[in-house]
Amino acid sequence: MEKALAYALEKRERFLADLIELLKIQSVSADPQRDAEVRRSAQWTADFLAKIGMDNAAVLETGGHPAVYADWLHAPGKPTILIYGHHDVQPEDPIDKWTTPPFDPVISDGYIRGRGTSDDKAQYMTHLFALEALLKTNGTLPCNIKVFIEGEEEGGKGMTHDFVRDNAKMLACDAVAISDTSWMSPTRPSIVYALRGIAYFEINVQGPDRDLHSGVYGGMVQNPLNAVGKLIASFQDADGNILVEGLYDDVVKLTAEERAEFASVQEPEDEIAADLKVPQLWGEAGYTAVERNWGRPSFDVHGIWGGFTGEGSKTVIAAEGGFKISFRLVANQEPEKIAKLVAAHVEKHCPPGVTATTTYLHGGTPVMVPADSAFIQAAADAFEQTFGKRPALVREGASIPITAVFQEALHAPAILVGYGLNEDNIHSPDEKFKVDHFYGGIDCNLRLYEAFAKVKV
Amino acid sequence: MEKALAYALEKRERFLADLIELLKIQSVSADPQRDAEVRRSAQWTADFLAKIGMDNAAVLETGGHPAVYADWLHAPGKPTILIYGHHDVQPEDPIDKWTTPPFDPVISDGYIRGRGTSDDKAQYMTHLFALEALLKTNGTLPCNIKVFIEGEEEGGKGMTHDFVRDNAKMLACDAVAISDTSWMSPTRPSIVYALRGIAYFEINVQGPDRDLHSGVYGGMVQNPLNAVGKLIASFQDADGNILVEGLYDDVVKLTAEERAEFASVQEPEDEIAADLKVPQLWGEAGYTAVERNWGRPSFDVHGIWGGFTGEGSKTVIAAEGGFKISFRLVANQEPEKIAKLVAAHVEKHCPPGVTATTTYLHGGTPVMVPADSAFIQAAADAFEQTFGKRPALVREGASIPITAVFQEALHAPAILVGYGLNEDNIHSPDEKFKVDHFYGGIDCNLRLYEAFAKVKV
Repeated sequence: MEKALAYALEKRERFLADLIELLKIQSVSADPQRDAEVRRSAQWTADFLAKIGMDNAAVLETGGHPAVYADWLHAPGKPTILIYGHHDVQPEDPIDKWTTPPFDPVISDGYIRGRGTSDDKAQYMTHLFALEALLKTNGTLPCNIKVFIEGEEEGGKGMTHDFVRDNAKMLACDAVAISDTSWMSPTRPSIVYALRGIAYFEINVQGPDRDLHSGVYGGMVQNPLNAVGKLIASFQDADGNILVEGLYDDVVKLTAEERAEFASVQEPEDEIAADLKVPQLWGEAGYTAVERNWGRPSFDVHGIWGGFTGEGSKTVIAAEGGFKISFRLVANQEPEKIAKLVAAHVEKHCPPGVTATTTYLHGGTPVMVPADSAFIQAAADAFEQTFGKRPALVREGASIPITAVFQEALHAPAILVGYGLNEDNIHSPDEKFKVDHFYGGIDCNLRLYEAFAKVKV
Repeated sequence: MEKALAYALEKRERFLADLIELLKIQSVSADPQRDAEVRRSAQWTADFLAKIGMDNAAVLETGGHPAVYADWLHAPGKPTILIYGHHDVQPEDPIDKWTTPPFDPVISDGYIRGRGTSDDKAQYMTHLFALEALLKTNGTLPCNIKVFIEGEEEGGKGMTHDFVRDNAKMLACDAVAISDTSWMSPTRPSIVYALRGIAYFEINVQGPDRDLHSGVYGGMVQNPLNAVGKLIASFQDADGNILVEGLYDDVVKLTAEERAEFASVQEPEDEIAADLKVPQLWGEAGYTAVERNWGRPSFDVHGIWGGFTGEGSKTVIAAEGGFKISFRLVANQEPEKIAKLVAAHVEKHCPPGVTATTTYLHGGTPVMVPADSAFIQAAADAFEQTFGKRPALVREGASIPITAVFQEALHAPAILVGYGLNEDNIHSPDEKFKVDHFYGGIDCNLRLYEAFAKVKV
């Protein structure tokens, strides 16, 4: 360990040079014009893994953009950790908003600046450089390691999830380590132990078989757009409770410890409201904003349509209208079960005189690794040793869909040990990643593998 | 009277030939390419009025399409009746759906076929031919008559309402006779004594100053589109009652006589539902469909918008959304007063965390001439004598906005003595008007003026 840390310190300049080489590859997976670049970043990563002494390093065909695999499985009786990341990046649009070139990285003011730094090349490379340091100094790793770096997290055909399901044996592991998230703040390291799932629907309301004149028919028929409003309103009460019967049945309640931890990191609510320019935050009564976002189901309408939306007035009763909604889910809600409850709700609450059709568009399972579980505590130990502070154990309101795939297909918890910051501008111009977090991440990973090695599996 | 009726019978062929001449003029007021045609139909009408011996026949400049005026005011002590109609017509689109040429009228199967037959050239010409018959045979009219035929009822700049307000003295009268409506059925003549008004609004809901990700913010903020649904739902309860406080305060209740009359002419509700292909009709509890449409306020959403409406799913919380609504009004509701109540309702019911803005787009006053009033009863007498059956006294759910202008600016009731049928395809291809109703209308008008002459004013 000491030798590996010393190696990592000594090789910092070379690590940074290697990373810059990778960052120059324009692996924009959403842009078919740059398919070859995505393949080039896969090849670069596979070559790197082979070079540092990992076994079976290869570019894998997924049916979409290629992924990368390598392993080192010479620690019998020790846990097997799958290191996951993605070598593809977001498009650089709008290009004219960048102050440095997106694919010609610049180091300034303590940041590595360029597309794909924080999301996710610099982050996954902290693992590969840590592996190099261990293999070059000890010739061995403290636990079994598999590396799986995908190429279409940001775009493409989305074949990787199926690839994971189809190759569950190859990817089998005890836990997945993912560095693709951010800390609560620059002074508050954090580890994400839960992500919300989702169930997404489109609901279409059909009234008469043609548009009607509201003078000639107004008062005689249920107006499909009145019905859209009534249906939307039927999903949530004035206290923010979701009214779908049974929706809360499987919700794992927040513990007092979790609520205290969340409170310790939550940004003041009035500051969030001021930032968003809303009169106040709002949601389910009895919970703070961060509790609602991280630990409770939520209901959102994403789009509504129907009738006349131009300038001025038209007295039409539209034949049909519709809306899209989703429910964010928390452990242990199951999207497929929620889909049934929502369809039943719509059927029950559809106003008389129109018909409503519910289409379940997609679902994602919520993910939670108990905060007191051994892998999470091992990761927290590594963070504390590296950054001098016990990390906050937090959740996220959004999903990282592949974590649910790992949970389902590999039965492996995803340990979200990210080194990014919210200020990193991922998905935006001027993406960046703190140089200190790059080096700190490498050191932390060295300790992480050692801590994971001690977990009984 | 007998002489006038005999004249009208003798001149039938010539009347029809004159009408066809007028119908050939393509006075489509919505089409700027045909402005000259609208002027030509005005000139044709003014020339006709001069020719038959009306005084002061002239084309009037309104600022929009020209109107036509003429008068005959030589019956001191008798009521003054303003005959209103419109010489402009709807566009003929879609032209390929016509089975006869829209502007080259054809007489077949007992119908005059062509654009502007029922709406409104043949209808207003029944009055002008009746005036001709009286003036040519008696040299006199039974009451004072003013004729006002506008040129932009179907399109154009909409200057005519202001023109009426600005020329209230010229148009001053005791009642307005309008033939621009339809009978309940071919065997059920009817006179419309009330029309609904309207108050039309756009409501905009503003949430955060930018679109948000529903994972990152879902549960923390009031979603503007959730709020759109809640606001729409706040306007109407499950029994179809409108929940705007005070909205019903000025509503004139339907009498038992009116409800009985409506019941006698109402189409069976299951047939209307079957025609519209809806599971059932629906509206305010305690009223039949026709009562709700003719005699009660109604609430309709005309358009809704916001967020993501494309294919598939996007997990956005839209910054804003909106909807358009109107309330149909009945006597004695006042649109301006309703506008205040609706704005107050929105303010009161706007969910926390977003702001809602109510814009009053336009209003129209409801119109009602008591069914037992002298002019209505006089018109009913003329109908009964002509068509052999006491007409049903009915209402309409829609507005004829100019009737409200006559009511407000001239303080004159609009007597809606139309000769059209619902099957006339007004505003659609193959517009037509029954030849029998053309001749019957002329005869009926002769009796109408005589009956009006007896009304004490």
